[in-house]
Amino acid sequence: MSNASLNVLKVEPIRGLSDKINKVRQDTAEIVSTYIIPEEKILYGAEGDGPRVKLQMEVTDLVKRSGLWAPHLPEDYGGMGLGFMGLAYMNEILAWSMASKRCFGLSAPNSGNQSVLVKYGTEEQKKKWLEPLVRGEMESCFAMTEPDVAGSNPRAIRTSAVRDGDEWVINGRKWFISNANRADFAITMCRTEVDGAEGGVNHMMTQIIVPTDTPGFNIERAMPIWGHTAGEATCEITFSDVRVPLENQLGQRGSGHAAAQDRLGAGRVYHCMDCVGQMWRAFDLMVKRMTEREVHGGLQETKQFLQGFIADSYMDIQAARLMTIHCAEVIDSGNNPRTDISAIKVFVPNAFHRVVDRAMQVYGGLGVCSDLPLEGMYKHARTLRLADGPDEVHRILIAKNVLKRYHSGQCWDFGV
Amino acid sequence: MSNASLNVLKVEPIRGLSDKINKVRQDTAEIVSTYIIPEEKILYGAEGDGPRVKLQMEVTDLVKRSGLWAPHLPEDYGGMGLGFMGLAYMNEILAWSMASKRCFGLSAPNSGNQSVLVKYGTEEQKKKWLEPLVRGEMESCFAMTEPDVAGSNPRAIRTSAVRDGDEWVINGRKWFISNANRADFAITMCRTEVDGAEGGVNHMMTQIIVPTDTPGFNIERAMPIWGHTAGEATCEITFSDVRVPLENQLGQRGSGHAAAQDRLGAGRVYHCMDCVGQMWRAFDLMVKRMTEREVHGGLQETKQFLQGFIADSYMDIQAARLMTIHCAEVIDSGNNPRTDISAIKVFVPNAFHRVVDRAMQVYGGLGVCSDLPLEGMYKHARTLRLADGPDEVHRILIAKNVLKRYHSGQCWDFGV
Amino acid sequence: MSNASLNVLKVEPIRGLSDKINKVRQDTAEIVSTYIIPEEKILYGAEGDGPRVKLQMEVTDLVKRSGLWAPHLPEDYGGMGLGFMGLAYMNEILAWSMASKRCFGLSAPNSGNQSVLVKYGTEEQKKKWLEPLVRGEMESCFAMTEPDVAGSNPRAIRTSAVRDGDEWVINGRKWFISNANRADFAITMCRTEVDGAEGGVNHMMTQIIVPTDTPGFNIERAMPIWGHTAGEATCEITFSDVRVPLENQLGQRGSGHAAAQDRLGAGRVYHCMDCVGQMWRAFDLMVKRMTEREVHGGLQETKQFLQGFIADSYMDIQAARLMTIHCAEVIDSGNNPRTDISAIKVFVPNAFHRVVDRAMQVYGGLGVCSDLPLEGMYKHARTLRLADGPDEVHRILIAKNVLKRYHSGQCWDFGV
Amino acid sequence: MSNASLNVLKVEPIRGLSDKINKVRQDTAEIVSTYIIPEEKILYGAEGDGPRVKLQMEVTDLVKRSGLWAPHLPEDYGGMGLGFMGLAYMNEILAWSMASKRCFGLSAPNSGNQSVLVKYGTEEQKKKWLEPLVRGEMESCFAMTEPDVAGSNPRAIRTSAVRDGDEWVINGRKWFISNANRADFAITMCRTEVDGAEGGVNHMMTQIIVPTDTPGFNIERAMPIWGHTAGEATCEITFSDVRVPLENQLGQRGSGHAAAQDRLGAGRVYHCMDCVGQMWRAFDLMVKRMTEREVHGGLQETKQFLQGFIADSYMDIQAARLMTIHCAEVIDSGNNPRTDISAIKVFVPNAFHRVVDRAMQVYGGLGVCSDLPLEGMYKHARTLRLADGPDEVHRILIAKNVLKRYHSGQCWDFGV
Repeated sequence: MSNASLNVLKVEPIRGLSDKINKVRQDTAEIVSTYIIPEEKILYGAEGDGPRVKLQMEVTDLVKRSGLWAPHLPEDYGGMGLGFMGLAYMNEILAWSMASKRCFGLSAPNSGNQSVLVKYGTEEQKKKWLEPLVRGEMESCFAMTEPDVAGSNPRAIRTSAVRDGDEWVINGRKWFISNANRADFAITMCRTEVDGAEGGVNHMMTQIIVPTDTPGFNIERAMPIWGHTAGEATCEITFSDVRVPLENQLGQRGSGHAAAQDRLGAGRVYHCMDCVGQMWRAFDLMVKRMTEREVHGGLQETKQFLQGFIADSYMDIQAARLMTIHCAEVIDSGNNPRTDISAIKVFVPNAFHRVVDRAMQVYGGLGVCSDLPLEGMYKHARTLRLADGPDEVHRILIAKNVLKRYHSGQCWDFGV
Repeated sequence: MSNASLNVLKVEPIRGLSDKINKVRQDTAEIVSTYIIPEEKILYGAEGDGPRVKLQMEVTDLVKRSGLWAPHLPEDYGGMGLGFMGLAYMNEILAWSMASKRCFGLSAPNSGNQSVLVKYGTEEQKKKWLEPLVRGEMESCFAMTEPDVAGSNPRAIRTSAVRDGDEWVINGRKWFISNANRADFAITMCRTEVDGAEGGVNHMMTQIIVPTDTPGFNIERAMPIWGHTAGEATCEITFSDVRVPLENQLGQRGSGHAAAQDRLGAGRVYHCMDCVGQMWRAFDLMVKRMTEREVHGGLQETKQFLQGFIADSYMDIQAARLMTIHCAEVIDSGNNPRTDISAIKVFVPNAFHRVVDRAMQVYGGLGVCSDLPLEGMYKHARTLRLADGPDEVHRILIAKNVLKRYHSGQCWDFGV
Repeated sequence: MSNASLNVLKVEPIRGLSDKINKVRQDTAEIVSTYIIPEEKILYGAEGDGPRVKLQMEVTDLVKRSGLWAPHLPEDYGGMGLGFMGLAYMNEILAWSMASKRCFGLSAPNSGNQSVLVKYGTEEQKKKWLEPLVRGEMESCFAMTEPDVAGSNPRAIRTSAVRDGDEWVINGRKWFISNANRADFAITMCRTEVDGAEGGVNHMMTQIIVPTDTPGFNIERAMPIWGHTAGEATCEITFSDVRVPLENQLGQRGSGHAAAQDRLGAGRVYHCMDCVGQMWRAFDLMVKRMTEREVHGGLQETKQFLQGFIADSYMDIQAARLMTIHCAEVIDSGNNPRTDISAIKVFVPNAFHRVVDRAMQVYGGLGVCSDLPLEGMYKHARTLRLADGPDEVHRILIAKNVLKRYHSGQCWDFGV
Repeated sequence: MSNASLNVLKVEPIRGLSDKINKVRQDTAEIVSTYIIPEEKILYGAEGDGPRVKLQMEVTDLVKRSGLWAPHLPEDYGGMGLGFMGLAYMNEILAWSMASKRCFGLSAPNSGNQSVLVKYGTEEQKKKWLEPLVRGEMESCFAMTEPDVAGSNPRAIRTSAVRDGDEWVINGRKWFISNANRADFAITMCRTEVDGAEGGVNHMMTQIIVPTDTPGFNIERAMPIWGHTAGEATCEITFSDVRVPLENQLGQRGSGHAAAQDRLGAGRVYHCMDCVGQMWRAFDLMVKRMTEREVHGGLQETKQFLQGFIADSYMDIQAARLMTIHCAEVIDSGNNPRTDISAIKVFVPNAFHRVVDRAMQVYGGLGVCSDLPLEGMYKHARTLRLADGPDEVHRILIAKNVLKRYHSGQCWDFGV
């Protein structure tokens, strides 16, 4: 990966922020800058690779000793209990390198599964699945998306779970399930209620915990996402008469849709936080390069086109960052954050895309070569624009929220 | 202008803001919504028109009684002493209607001239020029731009002031001088020092107060800006042996460039605050229309393209607003705000342009007709992209500030 | 207007084009370059102004002697009979200055009315209205748009014409009617058939010729388009029991919608041809300026940002131009041109807007001042995006045409 | 790959085109549609894979029998001798599938090497290297780019060739050399002249044919472009005292830069032709999907946002296509095509990028999965924006060409 000398991330205390969060930021910057960025080549190495395992364990230990483990989880469950705003400030540092995520106990989809288990799990489920997951002793996946159903319409899911005595019997096909090849269990979205059931269309799904060694749980293939099938693969899975005990049901029957919305809402905000950190990193790589690279008649930094890249990226990052922090504040305040979540879900990955695009352009051929993290960021940014609801769906949601306010006789209040 | 029923501006208290500012916002909203927006047709009437004069005086009285007069000035000089951040929060309400500016004692270029007089004026100058200007008994203009000099390069100004005994003798040509036809005095940027003078290129200009009835001060023409020459015109002016007493000099000899930078820096931020309010208003006009206008097979609000306009405008406004407030916070904190000023100087008018553009499109032909304030906003937004330094210059400034940090061995810290 | 020296328009013969068209181009360039552009200030002067009238007559005489009058009309009616493709090549020269339009007998809305009269008029109507209109002895307007009807939905028009003996009696309100204040007659779109009439929704309208001195034809106001009400104004009109003889009916009863579609279809293509010429002119003004204007440390032409303006404008013009010519070829070939008309209706005014926007930026303040034609172009470009069907409507039409092909089992063939 | 039923490519004869070219188009469409698109999965299979080899041979035979082999080469060298314009019309069909390239004898970098050998090769070189290359019995690569030299500045190349008796001795490092792992020989760009040599900076390079089994020619690694290292890899290479006989020198000493410019100029146009075909394919995949895929409350084709995707892609394709054909016409006419080559080099890959981006969005997750060709197109489009001179360099070149014309006293003539 990139040369260590390129990235000296040092952050100053932010005015108006608590001492606690400022310290978290600085401690995080120290670890990311010293232990992670210079070793990205190792940390992105093949899974099971000796040096990678060893380094990951060392950094994880340091993170835990520094009290920075699992920032998204309540303290009772081994996390930092930071809240969304605190996490926004911490994560923009942490996400300078996506290799940090695993070292800080914050890697999707495990992190989302943890939050769902915290909120919906029984004591027994927490003991059996949550605790080892938080400790990093288990892996998990979230099995929702299906081939014949628009991803933005989770109510149309077809995988069925039918009760048979003390068991749920699951049949169906899922795809785009990331981490499935490494997972010990899959939280699986199943249709458990018949059409016309009480509670209507939002109460027909139930999430069920399925250990991946259950007979009938089959990984059909690693899907070639952007041509890749290695590592934490994205898989296509079938469930053929998969039987799990009733106690593997997560929350009430019919609560699956609500639980998924909780998870996806938070997940969108986390993704945006990641984007902000990654943008900042891409910006750093770009500017550093411009101060060093000679082109026709001078350093890149003397060329207006490339100065324009700095300026436009500065604005993109500042806008994305302030909107993400603002959204996190709205969530923490208890107000309805849905319009702002949709707004950042659209704005931030697009801004991320633009920033990385410019950085790639500055590096030329090297920009599309995995010697640098830029090409990975680029694919990631593109993917985010269609994952968890494409841009188009979230733009409609923003409009509908605004229109609802107008139909109630009020204009929109941007101050709140 | 637009129908009163279209605009009921009501704002809720903002979390985390002081009670004082929240009250200012709500009082301002009350006045703008009740007295200004429904009467815009009158307030934009021909100058000297009876109903306009009468209404303006009434609203001004109310504003003064409500303690909302001249929010940008220190209390010692008859203002509110709000600071930049407070002003950002107040002005986004106030600027729903540009007709408010005069009613709140906040109309350019008078407001900028007031601030310069506060900082650089002698006691005598303040008594003679500042006080009547603040009370609204005088008008003024700021004479800087010249035909043969790039507007973004104020150090190249050619209008000369030569000392002759107790007088400055001024010769030169200025253009794009707004409000000159109504002004009682012009703060005039003059070259007073010869090349190679002490202090260098940034110390060759001096600002001099020129009463507009001084012999040799000639308004050559009202310039047809966007085809218009009426009202508060933008003028071309010549100075032919204009003689003013030495005591009309503003600040030290050679301080003119610094004073202009002060003024322009603040002015850029004020313009952005105006843009935020205007965007919000355009958004309101657009959304309201969509809930009422029937097109092919349904109300406009049911069409995805137009829902997209709401969503994209929501993001533009939120980004512009948060960046403007953030910049105001940086100024108030005493940190160097120049990068952020340049960033909003570029971002905000462009966002304003996009928001108004969409609102126009929703109104069809009416969008380009002065029955609504939209076409005026559109021209204003366009003009802002080249006034006070075009986008291109500010993008370069952002880049240079970032690069300077890198050359000092640090990366950019977006948190500060 | 702009300095003559700025614009020396000289064109070379185009490979593969007929000698006739190449000669038309070169003769047109000669006239535009020699007689029109250097005198734009006069030609854009107040109507009835002596020098303007005199010059216009002189140039018109020259145009007629050169065989270049009324290029859009068949030779039988005093025109050149060029066809769309020939006109595309001629008009991109002619439209360097919009002041040419009147001198070449090609000014809207007269030109559109002429074409409608050619196709739908009786011999008597042609004698009475068309011939004097072509000779430039009459003026006309086209009264279609109404306040309460979406402009893009002409079938919803409410102005009624009811037969009473030998007369049509017209009642209704029209607005955005350009040239109405100068017109001798108005071709008026009226609802003549009741709902459910034979032929359905596309056969309920009839166009009727209304002399503007008919009692009950009232110009309510000149609408302040972009703040302007002077010259060839855009008017709001009422019809109050306006009675005209039956022989003023244009074409069959119920043919009004079809006639309007003919006119608007052609009109959209003409507007695009104008845009191409105007873009080329704006490009010329911009590049010329860059070779002369000094900014920080050098001529504008040495700055990458501004070089980028040249490059991007080059691509915009080339794309707009080739698409417009291609569309004209499709029309002349007799193939269905509707998809391509909608495509240029969207693409070309937007490209025009971008090109003018850049030219304005290069000129700074002068860009928004009517000393140059740029600000007028800018408003014109913006208006075109919502006139004759807004962008959104034409984008839907393109899609529907493509989808129709797919539903017939074929893929789209871009070659045809 | 994609389902065969998705792609029935049938083209009609194009008006005004020769019968020959129309037949070429239709024959090409027949082969691509029948033999290539339905079998893409096989044709993109692992190299050396049995079914792939077999199918490729069969299709190649058919192509040769149909007289469609090597369309870019003169007939004397086994090609079709189509000229640029003919190739533009043929290739937009052919490039519906990039798997066609090899089947039609048109795969880079072999095709470029062939053209260079045709123009610069001796009879002996043609016999030894060109003929087997055209017959498909050899593979080749072009070794130009170096790590420490801006790709857009080929005159700065450092790899040296020093004459030693009857041999050239080559030392240096190259990277981003595609197909190097499969190549039998590498045409290598070497610095052979010392600074200050006759002819100046454009005459210091010589191209030399280096058989890849020459001692000292080392493939250091397959570079992980977009994370991939398999197939026709992009390699980093070192030359350590590589000795080849003098007769491997291609053309005159010092002609290397000119030969590279020839090749790169043509190559840019070929890339654009490929983009046009690929865009058309992406468009087809997108529209077809929209007619079949159900989303919230209806087929995708009924949603305005997605209709907008069709319309915007239609305009992008039409503009890109017409500009590419226009550029080919200019080349064939013998006029200087450099401005137009730069224009399409910038415009077309960007348009390609936008079209593919929309198609991906319509497919959701499947859009980034290699089950469809879209993700490959997306990476390809992005790469093209920085390969063979980044957008920024070509935008400057366009501007310089335009400015040169103005400095010679002429305005730009878009007609020529």
